[in-house]
Amino acid sequence: MAIDLRSDTVTRPSDAMRAAAADADVGDDVYGEDPTVNDLEATAADLIGVEDALYVPTGTMGNQIAARVHGERGEEVVLDRKSHIYQWELGGLAQLSGLQTRPVDAGDAVPTPEQFESAYVAESLHRPGTGLLTLENTHNARGGVAVTPEAISAVAEAAHDRDVPVHLDGARLFNACVALDVDPSRMVRDVDSVLFCLSKGLGAPVGSILAGDADFVAAARRVRKLFGGGMRQAGLIAAPGLLALENVDRLATDHENAARLAAGLDDIEGLRVPEPDTNIVQVHTDDLGVEAEAFVAACEDAGVRGGAHGPHLTRFCTHLDVDRDDIEEAIERVGDAVETLRA
Amino acid sequence: MAIDLRSDTVTRPSDAMRAAAADADVGDDVYGEDPTVNDLEATAADLIGVEDALYVPTGTMGNQIAARVHGERGEEVVLDRKSHIYQWELGGLAQLSGLQTRPVDAGDAVPTPEQFESAYVAESLHRPGTGLLTLENTHNARGGVAVTPEAISAVAEAAHDRDVPVHLDGARLFNACVALDVDPSRMVRDVDSVLFCLSKGLGAPVGSILAGDADFVAAARRVRKLFGGGMRQAGLIAAPGLLALENVDRLATDHENAARLAAGLDDIEGLRVPEPDTNIVQVHTDDLGVEAEAFVAACEDAGVRGGAHGPHLTRFCTHLDVDRDDIEEAIERVGDAVETLRA
Amino acid sequence: MAIDLRSDTVTRPSDAMRAAAADADVGDDVYGEDPTVNDLEATAADLIGVEDALYVPTGTMGNQIAARVHGERGEEVVLDRKSHIYQWELGGLAQLSGLQTRPVDAGDAVPTPEQFESAYVAESLHRPGTGLLTLENTHNARGGVAVTPEAISAVAEAAHDRDVPVHLDGARLFNACVALDVDPSRMVRDVDSVLFCLSKGLGAPVGSILAGDADFVAAARRVRKLFGGGMRQAGLIAAPGLLALENVDRLATDHENAARLAAGLDDIEGLRVPEPDTNIVQVHTDDLGVEAEAFVAACEDAGVRGGAHGPHLTRFCTHLDVDRDDIEEAIERVGDAVETLRA
Amino acid sequence: MAIDLRSDTVTRPSDAMRAAAADADVGDDVYGEDPTVNDLEATAADLIGVEDALYVPTGTMGNQIAARVHGERGEEVVLDRKSHIYQWELGGLAQLSGLQTRPVDAGDAVPTPEQFESAYVAESLHRPGTGLLTLENTHNARGGVAVTPEAISAVAEAAHDRDVPVHLDGARLFNACVALDVDPSRMVRDVDSVLFCLSKGLGAPVGSILAGDADFVAAARRVRKLFGGGMRQAGLIAAPGLLALENVDRLATDHENAARLAAGLDDIEGLRVPEPDTNIVQVHTDDLGVEAEAFVAACEDAGVRGGAHGPHLTRFCTHLDVDRDDIEEAIERVGDAVETLRA
Repeated sequence: MAIDLRSDTVTRPSDAMRAAAADADVGDDVYGEDPTVNDLEATAADLIGVEDALYVPTGTMGNQIAARVHGERGEEVVLDRKSHIYQWELGGLAQLSGLQTRPVDAGDAVPTPEQFESAYVAESLHRPGTGLLTLENTHNARGGVAVTPEAISAVAEAAHDRDVPVHLDGARLFNACVALDVDPSRMVRDVDSVLFCLSKGLGAPVGSILAGDADFVAAARRVRKLFGGGMRQAGLIAAPGLLALENVDRLATDHENAARLAAGLDDIEGLRVPEPDTNIVQVHTDDLGVEAEAFVAACEDAGVRGGAHGPHLTRFCTHLDVDRDDIEEAIERVGDAVETLRA
Repeated sequence: MAIDLRSDTVTRPSDAMRAAAADADVGDDVYGEDPTVNDLEATAADLIGVEDALYVPTGTMGNQIAARVHGERGEEVVLDRKSHIYQWELGGLAQLSGLQTRPVDAGDAVPTPEQFESAYVAESLHRPGTGLLTLENTHNARGGVAVTPEAISAVAEAAHDRDVPVHLDGARLFNACVALDVDPSRMVRDVDSVLFCLSKGLGAPVGSILAGDADFVAAARRVRKLFGGGMRQAGLIAAPGLLALENVDRLATDHENAARLAAGLDDIEGLRVPEPDTNIVQVHTDDLGVEAEAFVAACEDAGVRGGAHGPHLTRFCTHLDVDRDDIEEAIERVGDAVETLRA
Repeated sequence: MAIDLRSDTVTRPSDAMRAAAADADVGDDVYGEDPTVNDLEATAADLIGVEDALYVPTGTMGNQIAARVHGERGEEVVLDRKSHIYQWELGGLAQLSGLQTRPVDAGDAVPTPEQFESAYVAESLHRPGTGLLTLENTHNARGGVAVTPEAISAVAEAAHDRDVPVHLDGARLFNACVALDVDPSRMVRDVDSVLFCLSKGLGAPVGSILAGDADFVAAARRVRKLFGGGMRQAGLIAAPGLLALENVDRLATDHENAARLAAGLDDIEGLRVPEPDTNIVQVHTDDLGVEAEAFVAACEDAGVRGGAHGPHLTRFCTHLDVDRDDIEEAIERVGDAVETLRA
Repeated sequence: MAIDLRSDTVTRPSDAMRAAAADADVGDDVYGEDPTVNDLEATAADLIGVEDALYVPTGTMGNQIAARVHGERGEEVVLDRKSHIYQWELGGLAQLSGLQTRPVDAGDAVPTPEQFESAYVAESLHRPGTGLLTLENTHNARGGVAVTPEAISAVAEAAHDRDVPVHLDGARLFNACVALDVDPSRMVRDVDSVLFCLSKGLGAPVGSILAGDADFVAAARRVRKLFGGGMRQAGLIAAPGLLALENVDRLATDHENAARLAAGLDDIEGLRVPEPDTNIVQVHTDDLGVEAEAFVAACEDAGVRGGAHGPHLTRFCTHLDVDRDDIEEAIERVGDAVETLRA
């Protein structure tokens, strides 16, 4: 059977999560009466040390809600040119909120204060001005880089000096916290809102948390309704989400597995695989002279699934449905795939 | 304990649904790999006799996706002035899709062909023209009226004669089918897309189905992603949704209960309660000289929960969490509430 | 040569206006340095007794700017279902500003306070609420009806009681003022912004005025730039606009001509022509059994140009390029056209 | 009296233009009946060798119309990060058309085919894909650089290979044509639409031309109405626009004046002034240690007006209202200003 390393979104809920779903105490969350959702929102807010939180069906919805609440039509969003909110959310910033994007090339995964400053635009008759800075941690497309809280605080401070709010797309926030051994509350201390996923490495089947101060969450609740995210007896999926919050520490295992995978793959001639910060492994196949699409196909044939993320860049993700044995097996299989490609 | 007749959205999932959630075979639905979601979509499409279907987290999202797929920016949507898509979806037609609304007063819950025709606007230099007709069945705000398939076909034909597509908001579609003893496939035969809820009377905790031909659903899948509705292991909630589709016939019980409730309440002096078509009971308190807010409060005190839907209009909904005994008890309690109000 | 009664927009600038254009003192209005534009804006504001004014290239732009400044995305605009801003501006309220329209059927050309009240929607989790009331005076599609300042103030007061701002589309504001012998400042006393055209009956070739308090105009100036209405040496067309402001009193002549035209046409068997308030004459051809398109074509053949505004409704407009002799001639020619149609 | 070099937008119409305005044959352009506008549109289309053209009140409106006609909501626009459409049009691409911007750093004023290719995004479930490439010639913020037709064709071909249409913001198109001695029809040969201003160096008081094939212009006419740009007797300003088209050759004088100005200023110690391609002169004051705002203020005091376009970057524009004597005088005055700043 194939070892599926395409993404940590493919994780399946545990038996405990399934049982929690079956036993969940539920109510109508549009009326604010689902006790499990309420519990999840309160627990999540506590966990990261913010005032309030909102359960949303997807990370994309959470990010887009945040952008709409923070930014006025026509204002600019400063973001890394490789960030998820810019690359993979269907142009929602423009389509849903009328926000203009001003990407910077954040080589270190987080824009520097200087990059923010040079991208900042003051309001004038001709310009609505900068209305939002978005960050991403860990940074997916830059290889699961774990951004330090100091780097976040530095650029957030620069933004706040200009009265620009900051949203953190923390789809994999806890991977960063675990990798850097940083308390989540420190990580989000200086941002105005944060999104994190209960799915992905934490293993919940569905759902994300959007958090911030009470005013922000009240406004976000309204935009969630507009976008069609106001579900009814959502406790059924919030219950596994509560268990997902207990999975934070085990992300360390994913990181160890990713480190082993990277080392093993890097030993294969023709592959260049930098040491990963977290659970995302980037395999460069330029030296091999093989394009990512072909490499992915060969790996698939050999029983390992990954994804092409650039002309010569393939991504593998570790997650709770693969263990160390799977990793060792995957390394062998990819080795076989490379042999085949060379032949 | 209060008898909750505020809405059929308050229904809690059955044990079988909970067990189905716990046992669901799941995968990543963004990759189209969740077998339970795929099964639900295929089953739902079959049930109503259309080509394809899409699972969405809420009815609001389904309606808004349909409007965006069918209508071009600036075009007009002809709809009943009391329809849900116009009244209760945060102006999404304008906000999310740039569509201008042209309401008609559909006294019979469905616009007549003549009403459509008089609302129809041809494209010109000054007008984008009519781009969509939306219908609602059953019609919530008009008292759960079950619209006949003939009435739907008549106005749909008028729209199609003008090359205007038709979307049916069938949040409670099966209530109409059961009340009129009409096959769902006949009900949706002449519309271009239909939305129905698995929650509400069918009892699923979360989720709705948006259905149409294959091209429509392909386009809808993309807009679902834009709106943030592309969930991951959604099979966990799709599984109860599959069971919900087996609850269609039992809606007849809700309708009988509603009929009994209406008759019982109408016997109370001061209340005027028309005979309902389906599971929605409208109580007029003008004769009593009591405003709906006060009436609802008095009922709440007496142990029956309803909702104010107009200055002197209160709505009660029957659903699978209330049985005939609850109904008899509710009638008595409301009688007590009226006594108190008169005192 | 044809007598052109299609619209008062067809008027050609006078020799004085042409000379004024040629002699205009100009500058770059984007920098606020065009003395003629500044003069026009100040004069216009004075004339109607408001704080500030903005020169815009068209009435449509002025109305759409006002809606965008007053209303938040998703909010509702209450307006007459026959109003220009709803019917003839390409759905701009939805397309450009994300505003949802809630038309009322203002039989008297202006919504009554009761109509506003019943259309008013309070803000809630499900509804952005009512954000704007727009009025029109004179009311074009209702036959150039001159709305009284009392009627405007009554409904404006109702709106203000709900914290809803009021915009007056006064494309033909001065026709109403002259017809009712009301000072413009009284007419706009209770609205929050007003648009009036320098073209149409006042005879300027291009341009309109959008006026309100200083904050409103500052915000409007920005939206004008966004919509592409920030012109450079606009003094060249503002200069005729200043002269147009001297044409207010002569609108009385247009009204007398319209009255004579209506009386003359009403005497023709088969035509039903209500007495006009101002310069717009509505000819009903139902009794004649002739559709408007055919009637307009026959009139055109006979040397009189008008426009079809409904299945059996034709509109004629008087303006400064037609005099009493033209009117008498037009009556005869239309009489001939009717003869031909009967034959 | 100050020598105004802030922009070529400050030019005042000539006596001939004023006379042309006064004598213009006009009609209602919304009905397509203004002979002067029609003449201007036909003449402009001929001049640049395209099928059809549309008169618009401003360059901003023309650019924004083009973007809306070419691009679908959510699609991406590839553009230079310093281009006018991105920097100075109030985020209209996002606000008015829901387009996401993907800037490249076009050091040579025009993106290379390689830059386009690396910015290009294919359509997928997660991405609407690239929908438009916009170019600018001459390129204002990069110093009035005249882009060669070969460079335009190269990147346009790359875009067309991907089925991406190309819009050219040629606000100062003829400056490029004159500087490079290229026929306008060659310059626009490979783009799908082009905007050029009749104001600026050509000297018309108001107005721009948006041109393309007949289908494009028909669609653009409709969007012009939506944006509020459908003017009435616009012939009055179109007439000077026709004369402006005769001013193309004299742009050479502006370029000579700019060259002389640049050389003169570069001789002043502390100023660094590259040789300009056209009529825009960029003065760098880093070496002087003076910020642009302060430098502009000192120049203003000395009787020369310019504009701050960066922390240490000041822009001067030559145009038809300044002659060689003015230039010599301006050099002296700026010299005095620098003396003062040093003191």
